[in-house]
Amino acid sequence: MKQVLMILGGMLLTLMVHAQQLTKTEEKNRSFTGAVAVKKQYRVIYQMDNGDPKVIEKVLRNLNNALNDPRLKGKLQAELVAFSGGTDAYLKGSKYEETLKSLVEKGVIVAQCANTLHERNIERDKIYDFIGVVPSGNGELILRQAEGWSVIKP
Amino acid sequence: MKQVLMILGGMLLTLMVHAQQLTKTEEKNRSFTGAVAVKKQYRVIYQMDNGDPKVIEKVLRNLNNALNDPRLKGKLQAELVAFSGGTDAYLKGSKYEETLKSLVEKGVIVAQCANTLHERNIERDKIYDFIGVVPSGNGELILRQAEGWSVIKP
Amino acid sequence: MKQVLMILGGMLLTLMVHAQQLTKTEEKNRSFTGAVAVKKQYRVIYQMDNGDPKVIEKVLRNLNNALNDPRLKGKLQAELVAFSGGTDAYLKGSKYEETLKSLVEKGVIVAQCANTLHERNIERDKIYDFIGVVPSGNGELILRQAEGWSVIKP
Repeated sequence: MKQVLMILGGMLLTLMVHAQQLTKTEEKNRSFTGAVAVKKQYRVIYQMDNGDPKVIEKVLRNLNNALNDPRLKGKLQAELVAFSGGTDAYLKGSKYEETLKSLVEKGVIVAQCANTLHERNIERDKIYDFIGVVPSGNGELILRQAEGWSVIKP
Repeated sequence: MKQVLMILGGMLLTLMVHAQQLTKTEEKNRSFTGAVAVKKQYRVIYQMDNGDPKVIEKVLRNLNNALNDPRLKGKLQAELVAFSGGTDAYLKGSKYEETLKSLVEKGVIVAQCANTLHERNIERDKIYDFIGVVPSGNGELILRQAEGWSVIKP
Repeated sequence: MKQVLMILGGMLLTLMVHAQQLTKTEEKNRSFTGAVAVKKQYRVIYQMDNGDPKVIEKVLRNLNNALNDPRLKGKLQAELVAFSGGTDAYLKGSKYEETLKSLVEKGVIVAQCANTLHERNIERDKIYDFIGVVPSGNGELILRQAEGWSVIKP
């Protein structure tokens, strides 16, 4: 009995110390759990414009995290557009083929900037056959935002 | 008198040279002083997703600059969301505790991505107690943009 | 005749193999050619906040690519705002003077953040005379997004 009281007392003390540490504003901030999804559909375009494998992997991981966010699950139309160094991810033989294919199967639009292909002298058949091609990655970002899509550059 | 005239002449010459240097279009551009705030309230979410202290400090400096912009002063609701390497800024013992607390006191929402905590095996009590947690940082960016918030990645 | 048939047969085989490689969803994705421009005007602000010459050149190249995107040609109002390290591009003597001037002549607003000038003790006459100055680059990004402009950080 004495031990139980001591444990309960300790827990109470911990709670009090915790409560004392945070101001009211801080407590309110701590209790924040995120924006609330009220729409039936959300749309996002991901910008992949860096050839650093760490950045490419971050883009792909981020995009999957968005698709799996419980607030957006089944409600998110996504597009992935590569330009500049990001094109490396699409080159045949890259280690991202399966991840990219699985994105396409999930309904994500996976697209490449034609300007970058031209600037870097990359023939279309050097990138995976299942990739779409858009006139410019930058134009795509501008048009999508104008259509109300969110944009994320990881 | 002669000296005064020479000085005035020199000043006039400088002005003329300056005027000659700029085309009409360039003069017009030089006179640009920024977009004008016409709304009563603005909203922005800052993306902090890099653990490089230089980037973390840039995010915090940028956010404070936005809060202090004379066009937005007192009109800006801001949120700061950390994910990926940006989480480092929230780890207890980091050098950003006071800056983050002052943001919270100013009404800025300061939030952490739950996915990153999970991926990096970081318990919630390892980050500052006053931080809120959202399901995913990427989902938060998407939802906020869909609500009409601006997004800035410094 | 035999040779022609063999060549035709080879081409057919290639097409079949190709068709077999792609699922229906993949074929659909491959046929994607980009978002469609339906508005009379589009607006975009470019964020130049890094002093790395590679990043500065990427910003300028990206902006030109957007202006030249066949979907946006003649329909795009653009602004370029520099802050943080991006200011280096505007310092007199930089190698970007002609590119920046040609952007201004094309109608692009080219602007500098006043906060950065202050933080880095840079007098206005140290940057090109044709550059406009805005209270803060971050405020500019927020206000433009609130006005419906797209934002791109290359």
